[in-house]
Amino acid sequence: MYLERIDGPNDVKKLSLEQMDVLAQEMREALFRKLSKHGGHFGPNFGMVEATIALHTVFDSPKDKMVFDVSHQSYCHKMLTGRKDAFLYEEHYDDVSGYSEPSESAHDFFVIGHTSTSVSLACGLAKGRDLLGGSENIIAIIGDGSLSGGEALEGLDFAAELNSNLIIVVNDNDMSIAENHGGLYQNLKQLRDTDGKAACNLFRAMGLDYVFVKNGNDIPSLIEAFKQVKDSTYPVVVHICTQKGKGYAPAEQDKETWHWCMPFDPETGKPLLADAGEDYSELTAQYLLEKMKKDPAVVGITSATPPILGFTPNRRKLAGKQFVDVGIAEETAVALASGIAANGGKPVYGVYSTFIQRTYDQLSQDLCVNSNAATILVFAASVYGMNDVTHLGIYDIPMMANIPNLVYLAPTTKEEYMAMLDWSVEQNNVPVAIRVPMQVVTSGVPCTKDFSQYNTYEVTQKGSRVAVIGLGNFYTLGQETAQEIAKQTGVQPTVINPMYITGVDEKLLESLKAEHDIVITAEDGILDGGFGEKIARFYGNSDMKVLNYGLKKEFLDRYDAEDVVKRNRLTAGQIAEDVIALL
Amino acid sequence: MYLERIDGPNDVKKLSLEQMDVLAQEMREALFRKLSKHGGHFGPNFGMVEATIALHTVFDSPKDKMVFDVSHQSYCHKMLTGRKDAFLYEEHYDDVSGYSEPSESAHDFFVIGHTSTSVSLACGLAKGRDLLGGSENIIAIIGDGSLSGGEALEGLDFAAELNSNLIIVVNDNDMSIAENHGGLYQNLKQLRDTDGKAACNLFRAMGLDYVFVKNGNDIPSLIEAFKQVKDSTYPVVVHICTQKGKGYAPAEQDKETWHWCMPFDPETGKPLLADAGEDYSELTAQYLLEKMKKDPAVVGITSATPPILGFTPNRRKLAGKQFVDVGIAEETAVALASGIAANGGKPVYGVYSTFIQRTYDQLSQDLCVNSNAATILVFAASVYGMNDVTHLGIYDIPMMANIPNLVYLAPTTKEEYMAMLDWSVEQNNVPVAIRVPMQVVTSGVPCTKDFSQYNTYEVTQKGSRVAVIGLGNFYTLGQETAQEIAKQTGVQPTVINPMYITGVDEKLLESLKAEHDIVITAEDGILDGGFGEKIARFYGNSDMKVLNYGLKKEFLDRYDAEDVVKRNRLTAGQIAEDVIALL
Repeated sequence: MYLERIDGPNDVKKLSLEQMDVLAQEMREALFRKLSKHGGHFGPNFGMVEATIALHTVFDSPKDKMVFDVSHQSYCHKMLTGRKDAFLYEEHYDDVSGYSEPSESAHDFFVIGHTSTSVSLACGLAKGRDLLGGSENIIAIIGDGSLSGGEALEGLDFAAELNSNLIIVVNDNDMSIAENHGGLYQNLKQLRDTDGKAACNLFRAMGLDYVFVKNGNDIPSLIEAFKQVKDSTYPVVVHICTQKGKGYAPAEQDKETWHWCMPFDPETGKPLLADAGEDYSELTAQYLLEKMKKDPAVVGITSATPPILGFTPNRRKLAGKQFVDVGIAEETAVALASGIAANGGKPVYGVYSTFIQRTYDQLSQDLCVNSNAATILVFAASVYGMNDVTHLGIYDIPMMANIPNLVYLAPTTKEEYMAMLDWSVEQNNVPVAIRVPMQVVTSGVPCTKDFSQYNTYEVTQKGSRVAVIGLGNFYTLGQETAQEIAKQTGVQPTVINPMYITGVDEKLLESLKAEHDIVITAEDGILDGGFGEKIARFYGNSDMKVLNYGLKKEFLDRYDAEDVVKRNRLTAGQIAEDVIALL
Repeated sequence: MYLERIDGPNDVKKLSLEQMDVLAQEMREALFRKLSKHGGHFGPNFGMVEATIALHTVFDSPKDKMVFDVSHQSYCHKMLTGRKDAFLYEEHYDDVSGYSEPSESAHDFFVIGHTSTSVSLACGLAKGRDLLGGSENIIAIIGDGSLSGGEALEGLDFAAELNSNLIIVVNDNDMSIAENHGGLYQNLKQLRDTDGKAACNLFRAMGLDYVFVKNGNDIPSLIEAFKQVKDSTYPVVVHICTQKGKGYAPAEQDKETWHWCMPFDPETGKPLLADAGEDYSELTAQYLLEKMKKDPAVVGITSATPPILGFTPNRRKLAGKQFVDVGIAEETAVALASGIAANGGKPVYGVYSTFIQRTYDQLSQDLCVNSNAATILVFAASVYGMNDVTHLGIYDIPMMANIPNLVYLAPTTKEEYMAMLDWSVEQNNVPVAIRVPMQVVTSGVPCTKDFSQYNTYEVTQKGSRVAVIGLGNFYTLGQETAQEIAKQTGVQPTVINPMYITGVDEKLLESLKAEHDIVITAEDGILDGGFGEKIARFYGNSDMKVLNYGLKKEFLDRYDAEDVVKRNRLTAGQIAEDVIALL
């Protein structure tokens, strides 16, 4: 086996072309075994095997510096840069992250996880090199799907300004996570159809040189192209056409399903874990499809992640023009929603907490300054969400909830969520975001609240001395804490479901002063700039004691949620202990 | 005079071509008079006179909907849509804002002030129309300078997906605020040089149709082109070549100076107000130029606003490759800075508070997750900064200061600023932002603080019972408040200069508990998610009373700063009154 003997790029360089083909096969087998047990990004890595071998054959990493966009396709790079064990041996599977990670290897230069950043980051490496008189090659590797993101397009435009070495490998597999959307993909097709000869060329129009590789899964062609651009003294795009999922028939056929996988049965390809049942993506899709039938103004929006809204390919077809995928272009998604609302439509944009981060200015300027009635559904906003450092869902409250005019809601049950969603779609006054809960909890009681009465919290249990305000996902923690306090002290706390993240119910908080000494807040996100601090400020000039519970401001990576929760004293027992000490 | 009789687009449509030429002349005269007395965007509006007349001749606003990018060039549009008085009569000059404003007129559809948003917003209007079966034309008008912004490029790419009417007028005057930067400008030149016939065409590469207008200051050519695309059933770019500052020789020659003007002498063109003397842009440029001479690793970065760093054209020449203008591309500016730092450079990015908003995700992911040692200078971050609703500098603390790893500093004097800047440039551990003060205050005492001791506040006056923490610009307010309290009560408050926005000096705050009952915070920005709330949270479980002073979370527009300050109880007298009531 060659792979077992690859300790770094020099070992790749020693191989003959025939041996490289065998290595490619071995790498796919290792990927298949690991991903079937471990899950991860399947299609992107299967497509990049040959290109990665060719890159490490031609360039001298880590002197030459490679920056992988999103870096979800960098598994092969890890295999060839001293980290093969993490793909060969099950006990080492967790030794590496799913993204590029400088702490693992000198061959990685940035922690990366969001799309569309590689070209601008690589421009920075190149500029640093030019300032200090270096001579290494700087290589950005970016997929066609990521090209539609604003930062990537900015980077492509800026690159020409460097007027020095920068190699941008565009890995074109004619797919984003789902199918691509956007006019530039017509041009990529034109380039593929003409073997790169079409005179109209997006990359040349950005001032860049251009090289085309018809078969991006053919090692000799790739090596030839990379040799041609090595030590280039001007920014150049190498457009390679690869096959996503190459080498595993089901992934070649159903590219969307096999972009990322959970652990699966290697015989059948079927996921090992059964479907988790009812979830908010499914509920949202059902609601929207029903609503769309009745009202042509309703439109769902995604930025390249239709599954988060529950919109499978079949449902996208059903929705027709009432479902829009803007591609990886979160900024445009928010602006589009604002524009649709301004012209009488009822837009609902579904997005992960970690990706809404790309739209602060669009939320503020395009949407909230104009107070247009768009609905934004924020998914996976929780310490229990994705746990890679680049994909955390714990910063959206400080990021969003301090923008004026936005009404950011935190439901605690399915009934509340559905009521908020329907209210938001039908109202015409304010931009609304909903922090979609992690788990579907059913109260069994219809929610009849009028959400246009902003910042009115609900007292769900009347008590005294202690009031517990549990926001969204942490409402249950609030309830449990109240029970724990009651059990240990006999004091029956008041329990409050605030529902509004963006404002304070001053009347209610004022009224608590009469019979309460301590107010507790709990939120599923970082404390700094969050919900609880607003409550602390409100009571600052009074005798009320306020204890804020939430996460410390820090970047967490591949953590165990229960550990983090305990470390931040986010269990009912720990909070009750703190409260009892104060009582 | 024709202009006096223009009450709306219908009055424009009635004019002959010869009369339109006279109208154009009258509009320039009105612009000149108003801008000489009032200041404003000069070059952009002088260049757009003919195009605006042609747009209102061909299209039927407000049924047809025009969206102006940045909208700093929409003065002419305002003149022709019922708002001429605000340009003809001095007493009405302030009746209109400097940007598009739906509350002024049915001909404006969004409040806009940041660049690069028009295409995506217009896509939203078009999508709304298509959902509801409308038939109006949607027109985005965007300058060449704005094209380099990520949101604009995303919008151009997405537009083709609409597959319906959308007209994108690219107003190409071959200038941003300063000269353009980026590879796409080579393509615009190629298109200009070939009368739009070059086969390589950025807009066609984005999947759009394309029409070229050689003389964008010639009304008949413009009318012909707009008629050609009116009711188009597919997105089309109309590329018009205009002259920035057209009709006023000094503005035609020195386009950068005349992009925006303060009130000036109509005879000489010289500004009426003398230079305000020493300012932080000037100090920064002097420091950086000196530093650059000694250290090739130092590099200044701007995103199309070099004056904010004090980099005049001459200084840009002096700095050579040690000064980079990325064009309007704030996202890339932050990523570039991170990449430069990762490869041994010492990047300093200067940016307005309102525009750093465009980079939340780049700050978080590209920079702070990687903890690269870039320096970001945030200018005009104050209630005393720009006062248009789209250009406020009062939200950067909640936006930035809750991002992990970032060290956000607030100097109060020139000495502190220079010490922080130099420390930041020379250190290699953390990303640092500095909230540049509004006014240069000199202490006369060198600042010797070691800023690598994070979150260590300075007690500048020891007192008791009351402690006043005045952040950055509001340190002086803190001092004055302490004096006022001392004067009225004899209680001598402790005064603290916190310097660190991003963290709490727990040791110091803990020690205050011994001899203090009240802590006051004052910050020059909104309170929600800000600095003071962290202090309130710290003291939540104690007997310390905390009063947070800052601005209410709201969008302010064209306000009088003193009014806003009083309304938010941000005078020493008001704060002292509150404190004394509590003592």
